[in-house]
Amino acid sequence: MIVDLFSDTQTRPTPGMREAMARAEVGDEQSGSDPTTNALCERVAEMLGMEDGVFMPSGTMCNLASILVQTRPGDEIICDDQSHLYNTEAAGSAAIGGVSVKALPTRVGLYTLEQAEAAIRIPQRTAPRSALISIEQTTSFSGGTVWDLGTMRAIRDLAHAKGLKAHIDGARLLNAVVATAIPASEYAAGFDSAWIDLSKGLGCPVGAVLCGSKDFVVEAWRWKYRLGGAMRQSGVLAAAGLYALDHHIEQLAEDNANAHRLHEAIRAAPGLVFDPTAGQSNILCFSVTGLGITAAEFAAACLADAVRIRAIGRDQIRATANLDVDRAGIARAAEVILAKAAVFAARAETPPAGSPRLQPGAHSQ
Amino acid sequence: MIVDLFSDTQTRPTPGMREAMARAEVGDEQSGSDPTTNALCERVAEMLGMEDGVFMPSGTMCNLASILVQTRPGDEIICDDQSHLYNTEAAGSAAIGGVSVKALPTRVGLYTLEQAEAAIRIPQRTAPRSALISIEQTTSFSGGTVWDLGTMRAIRDLAHAKGLKAHIDGARLLNAVVATAIPASEYAAGFDSAWIDLSKGLGCPVGAVLCGSKDFVVEAWRWKYRLGGAMRQSGVLAAAGLYALDHHIEQLAEDNANAHRLHEAIRAAPGLVFDPTAGQSNILCFSVTGLGITAAEFAAACLADAVRIRAIGRDQIRATANLDVDRAGIARAAEVILAKAAVFAARAETPPAGSPRLQPGAHSQ
Amino acid sequence: MIVDLFSDTQTRPTPGMREAMARAEVGDEQSGSDPTTNALCERVAEMLGMEDGVFMPSGTMCNLASILVQTRPGDEIICDDQSHLYNTEAAGSAAIGGVSVKALPTRVGLYTLEQAEAAIRIPQRTAPRSALISIEQTTSFSGGTVWDLGTMRAIRDLAHAKGLKAHIDGARLLNAVVATAIPASEYAAGFDSAWIDLSKGLGCPVGAVLCGSKDFVVEAWRWKYRLGGAMRQSGVLAAAGLYALDHHIEQLAEDNANAHRLHEAIRAAPGLVFDPTAGQSNILCFSVTGLGITAAEFAAACLADAVRIRAIGRDQIRATANLDVDRAGIARAAEVILAKAAVFAARAETPPAGSPRLQPGAHSQ
Amino acid sequence: MIVDLFSDTQTRPTPGMREAMARAEVGDEQSGSDPTTNALCERVAEMLGMEDGVFMPSGTMCNLASILVQTRPGDEIICDDQSHLYNTEAAGSAAIGGVSVKALPTRVGLYTLEQAEAAIRIPQRTAPRSALISIEQTTSFSGGTVWDLGTMRAIRDLAHAKGLKAHIDGARLLNAVVATAIPASEYAAGFDSAWIDLSKGLGCPVGAVLCGSKDFVVEAWRWKYRLGGAMRQSGVLAAAGLYALDHHIEQLAEDNANAHRLHEAIRAAPGLVFDPTAGQSNILCFSVTGLGITAAEFAAACLADAVRIRAIGRDQIRATANLDVDRAGIARAAEVILAKAAVFAARAETPPAGSPRLQPGAHSQ
Repeated sequence: MIVDLFSDTQTRPTPGMREAMARAEVGDEQSGSDPTTNALCERVAEMLGMEDGVFMPSGTMCNLASILVQTRPGDEIICDDQSHLYNTEAAGSAAIGGVSVKALPTRVGLYTLEQAEAAIRIPQRTAPRSALISIEQTTSFSGGTVWDLGTMRAIRDLAHAKGLKAHIDGARLLNAVVATAIPASEYAAGFDSAWIDLSKGLGCPVGAVLCGSKDFVVEAWRWKYRLGGAMRQSGVLAAAGLYALDHHIEQLAEDNANAHRLHEAIRAAPGLVFDPTAGQSNILCFSVTGLGITAAEFAAACLADAVRIRAIGRDQIRATANLDVDRAGIARAAEVILAKAAVFAARAETPPAGSPRLQPGAHSQ
Repeated sequence: MIVDLFSDTQTRPTPGMREAMARAEVGDEQSGSDPTTNALCERVAEMLGMEDGVFMPSGTMCNLASILVQTRPGDEIICDDQSHLYNTEAAGSAAIGGVSVKALPTRVGLYTLEQAEAAIRIPQRTAPRSALISIEQTTSFSGGTVWDLGTMRAIRDLAHAKGLKAHIDGARLLNAVVATAIPASEYAAGFDSAWIDLSKGLGCPVGAVLCGSKDFVVEAWRWKYRLGGAMRQSGVLAAAGLYALDHHIEQLAEDNANAHRLHEAIRAAPGLVFDPTAGQSNILCFSVTGLGITAAEFAAACLADAVRIRAIGRDQIRATANLDVDRAGIARAAEVILAKAAVFAARAETPPAGSPRLQPGAHSQ
Repeated sequence: MIVDLFSDTQTRPTPGMREAMARAEVGDEQSGSDPTTNALCERVAEMLGMEDGVFMPSGTMCNLASILVQTRPGDEIICDDQSHLYNTEAAGSAAIGGVSVKALPTRVGLYTLEQAEAAIRIPQRTAPRSALISIEQTTSFSGGTVWDLGTMRAIRDLAHAKGLKAHIDGARLLNAVVATAIPASEYAAGFDSAWIDLSKGLGCPVGAVLCGSKDFVVEAWRWKYRLGGAMRQSGVLAAAGLYALDHHIEQLAEDNANAHRLHEAIRAAPGLVFDPTAGQSNILCFSVTGLGITAAEFAAACLADAVRIRAIGRDQIRATANLDVDRAGIARAAEVILAKAAVFAARAETPPAGSPRLQPGAHSQ
Repeated sequence: MIVDLFSDTQTRPTPGMREAMARAEVGDEQSGSDPTTNALCERVAEMLGMEDGVFMPSGTMCNLASILVQTRPGDEIICDDQSHLYNTEAAGSAAIGGVSVKALPTRVGLYTLEQAEAAIRIPQRTAPRSALISIEQTTSFSGGTVWDLGTMRAIRDLAHAKGLKAHIDGARLLNAVVATAIPASEYAAGFDSAWIDLSKGLGCPVGAVLCGSKDFVVEAWRWKYRLGGAMRQSGVLAAAGLYALDHHIEQLAEDNANAHRLHEAIRAAPGLVFDPTAGQSNILCFSVTGLGITAAEFAAACLADAVRIRAIGRDQIRATANLDVDRAGIARAAEVILAKAAVFAARAETPPAGSPRLQPGAHSQ
């Protein structure tokens, strides 16, 4: 059996969740008559302290719909340069929304109030119109770093003062909630839109819920329909979401703890480089620059020993704790990573005779 | 209990279907590792005689993705002026694809080869570029009319000869298959893309499958992802589709027969007008122009007697047979429709004293 | 020397116009400091009874900017099916604005109030949102037909009552003004946007002026810039426009009279078919269906005798009076057209031995 | 008289240029029959060593058309984060092209080969597709810095090796040509598209010429038309371009020299900060951070003494030499800038009693 830390999106529904799905009361969501979908939307809206919610087939559609509702072609979004929105949504914001992105350079996905302020453009005919600012809580490709509540609020207030809308990409917002004991409604308070994903740490097969004001949700529904995301008896999926909110929140705490354990176990490994913020939630990122190999090569070596981690850049590895990996699995993952790091680190010290010494950062490696 | 003929999209999953969903083997569809979704796509592709398929959250996304793959902004699609694509997809082809629509005037959704030929624009810089031609089999808002195979092929060949792609909106293609005993693969042969819906007559909660060549499906997947339609363990939904293909095809025949029965029962009602093509599959459309009331008023009157039919225009009614309505339900629907028609027809003959005689087609009525 | 009736867009600036251009006082139009451009915009705005105007490089950009300002992606425009907007702007409204077109079937570009009313969609999530209605005064590809003021006003009022904006494509509005003695401001009164072209009958080399409210013009300028239509010292072009408004209006009357003369001269020609509305302004359209040849063949035959007219469809010819063709030129054009029609009509009567009689409307001819 | 260094776009046509315009032989550019426009396009294409060219109303339309031809919605462009394309084209690439921008952080608009390489995304369904790389020669908002030929070629080759197209925004390419004595055709060799502006240093009222292969120009023309940039007798404008290429190239050398003179004169001023690359062509940028005031305040102070320079950021000033400012004007500008800098620098040293000392970089100032 593989210890699979590739992503928390790979999890399969548990028997209890499947049973809840099989029993779900359903109707046509498009006429507002699927009671289970309605219940899920209300519940998530309440968690986030928002007026209303809409069930979406994916988190990507949540980000996209939020942009489509809150911008016009020629507008600009501000977000961090490692965000899912900018890098991993196939440029949907530009392709479908006609919207430009001002991606702020960050180390671990957290930009500052000053960066946000400098990024908001002076209104003039020749410039894109700054219209929406997005915060990804927790960061996805930067190691699950948790945004500080105060900074989020300061950025939100800046946005509103300058006439922008403020959005939370909350794919893993609940991991932050569990890590900090700050309620989701505190994080989302005053934001114009926010969503949570059901198919990541919560372990559902499909779906996410996007929330905002009643008017916002009316318009988000319009775009959901136009994008082809309107379903029929979606209660079969929503039932999984309700089940997860009842039974899987504690799993998020366990995931966070497992990522922390893995970090403790491997942080001193030779050649692995961790950011000081590493291990705050269920994602652990590190660089293999010190090993003289690429991240893809390191991941392949671990996979050969039945531990699956993910290369997310030339040098960057991401390991994501999830409900399919228990404490023992984490221990085995740590063991394999340590062993592989030791082997490669030793090689990096001793170049083969006759070949030039490897240069750190040389791209051909 | 209401006899609900509003649409075949309102059907709820049967116990057998729910059980199949609960037992479904699943994986992450995005990495191609959901075996049930893969099996469904292969099965539908085989039915349609195509190389490959992709599971979509809705038929609307099937049409949209097909357009996005096979056109560029500034291109033009040719379809009939009553088509779902033109009227009921929230202008997604223009909003998302940047594509213009040449909607051909038709009586019941069937255009001719001559119309298609005249609609293809001469290539020049100033004109939209004709790029894609679409046929809706069966017609959705024109009474479930069945396209003739020969005409479809002639239009397909014309399209190819002129450098256009040819697409089938097959939301109810299987109703045509059942009605004519012509296999789906015959209808789809040589077309560049085609899809069937699972959540209409087949009774699944969510989903449709879009098919085409392998290259087409790669690009359709790209757009599915960008639109936010990429799911995770979609096998829970795909299992319903496989179950329906095994167990619900005969239901489509029953639906077709029920629509035919309803037509026979009410075709002579005073004030109701039927097209000569009426009753070919599971949808029955008629006009209430002869009754001096609007379609909405007629539908409301029937609903008051627990029969739900749908106003789809000022004068036009659509009744759709589906698996939630059996033969007895059809008989009751016929009874109610006949009774209401008789009442309104009588009134239309005898205007209230002091008021002017109702004018046919007057909009205020 | 060719008698060129191909279009009124081919005219070259007159010596007086060139001199005005050479003397023009200029500045940077983008900072609002080109006095000649400003003067032209004010003058046209005043003619149309509107608050403000913006100079554009083309009429196509006027239509496009008006759409971009007054719609959002997913909206729908209503216009006639022979309009320049729908057929001859390379689907810019869809490609750039994401906007669908509801093109109303018409005989000569004039739709009725009833058609307009039926075309406005009932607001619902699944439908395009009807947002803008456009009237082309005079019709471009339908023979320069002049819209009746009362109908225009009724359609404008309907639009406003239903929440739509109303737009005039006034490429040849001044030809209508001259033909009817109704001032441009009467035609444009109450419309949300309207424009006139300078490079058609007025004989300028480049440009058109789009007018509306002050707010509208601010937004139109934003799109002009984004589209790449913002120029610098555009006063050199605007000077031509001012000159034309001073000196070429009477030419439009002469153009209208010439088209009328041509119509009188050839209306009885064998095999030529004219609409009853033919000859209302400077454009004359007719069909050659009775001659057993295509419009392209007929145009080629005339060109061989130094008369240039334009095939605008398989059977349709358009001749456009303009300042490069005087009364004598019109007489010669009439002579050639009559002669050619006589030759072809005779041939159509006498098919070559052994070949089947030509069928009217057969496409292969 | 004001010494106007605001931009080189404000220049007015000279008497000789006006005469050339008045005498221009013209035709309809849309049918390819404007001989002067044709001659200009051929001449610029030859200068750039490219097959063909198209006359555009603005440089913005050149960049936009190049993007529209060489990308599809969902693609990504790579350019520097201070480029005109990213900051000053109203997000047209996203709004109209549906294209995302990867804006590379740079100091003076020059990115490195390594940055370019790292910016090209690994092809995968979830990522934008890297499609086009753009170089702005010289940099517009970064002080007219001149790209090194070797770096340009290395980036071009990288682009091609990775399947991207390579584009030059050559708004001021000729300033680089004059500064380095490297021919334009050397800079443009092997690039897929490049353009020069006529209305900047060359002093024409309107226009730019976009060049590439014959196929590229066919497609660029298609977009020019769709965008509303197609004109009629554009020869009146093209004549100015031909005149400028004959008579104003030496002016560019003078502009470059004047910017250099200004730099020499003010580089030691207290509180002004210059990049080491400053003064390479006709644009001179500097920061006023050392003066305790904003760039807007400094520009206003200079304008009060009849010297107009431009604030292009909170702290950044841009002065652009152009044909309306001779050597004496430059001397006067230097004098005023020095005097104002001295005054503000002195004040920054001596804060008013009772007020806190100004912090460098504090935004409220």
